[in-house]
Amino acid sequence: MRAGLALAALALALSLALAAWRRRRRPVREVLFFPSPPRCTEALLAEAAGSGGAARPCPCPLPRGDCALGRLLRRLLSARRSLELCLFAFSSPQLGHAVCLLHRRGVRVRVVTDAQYMGLPGSQIGLLRRAGIQVRHDQESGYMHHKFAIVDRRLLITGSLNWTTQAIQSNRENVLVVEDAEYVKPFLEEFERIWEEYNPVNYRFFTQRQ
Amino acid sequence: MRAGLALAALALALSLALAAWRRRRRPVREVLFFPSPPRCTEALLAEAAGSGGAARPCPCPLPRGDCALGRLLRRLLSARRSLELCLFAFSSPQLGHAVCLLHRRGVRVRVVTDAQYMGLPGSQIGLLRRAGIQVRHDQESGYMHHKFAIVDRRLLITGSLNWTTQAIQSNRENVLVVEDAEYVKPFLEEFERIWEEYNPVNYRFFTQRQ
Repeated sequence: MRAGLALAALALALSLALAAWRRRRRPVREVLFFPSPPRCTEALLAEAAGSGGAARPCPCPLPRGDCALGRLLRRLLSARRSLELCLFAFSSPQLGHAVCLLHRRGVRVRVVTDAQYMGLPGSQIGLLRRAGIQVRHDQESGYMHHKFAIVDRRLLITGSLNWTTQAIQSNRENVLVVEDAEYVKPFLEEFERIWEEYNPVNYRFFTQRQ
Repeated sequence: MRAGLALAALALALSLALAAWRRRRRPVREVLFFPSPPRCTEALLAEAAGSGGAARPCPCPLPRGDCALGRLLRRLLSARRSLELCLFAFSSPQLGHAVCLLHRRGVRVRVVTDAQYMGLPGSQIGLLRRAGIQVRHDQESGYMHHKFAIVDRRLLITGSLNWTTQAIQSNRENVLVVEDAEYVKPFLEEFERIWEEYNPVNYRFFTQRQ
């Protein structure tokens, strides 16, 4: 009788553990492919800004609906505490708008970029700086060619996509959205390494005083 | 007595299942960061070619040892059946050598590349074609900007890295090595989609006959 009870308890515990294991949240694993057809992303940005985008529809003639850029924006706009950006080229107005929104919402935004590309026409880097966002850049002859973002230190967004309208609308590109720690951790470490290395105290624009 | 036996059997089955679950092979999840310092990769390539590289050391003055390029080469050279390459720019002689080696070893190699970049000085695309490897390219104004490889339809290698010596030795770059099917499957589908779209029968270099 006692053994029977123990058997039943064991079976119950086993099935509960199995159910919990099945229910555990699977890590986010998403792939976005570009080009992304031109779509209106105003509602998405207005909603994130809390200005009731749904109530006042955007008058622009672009079609609405799901697209790779919209899904990328949604992942970015999910940031609540921090956003690290390590971007070779950044000129997409929609992505620039999203990053400024997050900064205004109190998210700690840090940007690392490439010195040769940050001054090109259409670059969002100046806008970010004027908004008060910290930006650091390389001083090297090689490119700072990464194109990744880390949301809340747990979600990595990385791929071939430079954050430019040309890349988004015309190129074949890929972006991976990754939550597995085996990827997020080394990218966070790479960001912190570059962030420290590109600290302005290390800049050497002028000849050292003898 | 019978319940006791059943209990023991259940406990045994449970512990065996748990041990098997713990032993199951974890999927490959690796991150490579560049720049990769110049290192001699001849031994690696000679070993893969079966010409006994270990016995006759390379006379070049480059240091030996582990580096990101060496690890990337090792992953590529692990191909036994197929290699899909979808590359914006491909001018690294070491990576070109590795791909030709795989082709000679009987691996089915297919390459998709960008029309504007494939003819640049140092491009490996002509060498691959002369070796008999199938290459297809875009016809679009946008770039074919992907930089990924798929080994044996199960291992995805993707990131910011163009396969050029400049990128490998001078740029900040990342490469992810991924075995999770959630990533490998969509990239395989993207490759097949592009491969068909870039089929030479679809090329429109000349004005259509009226």
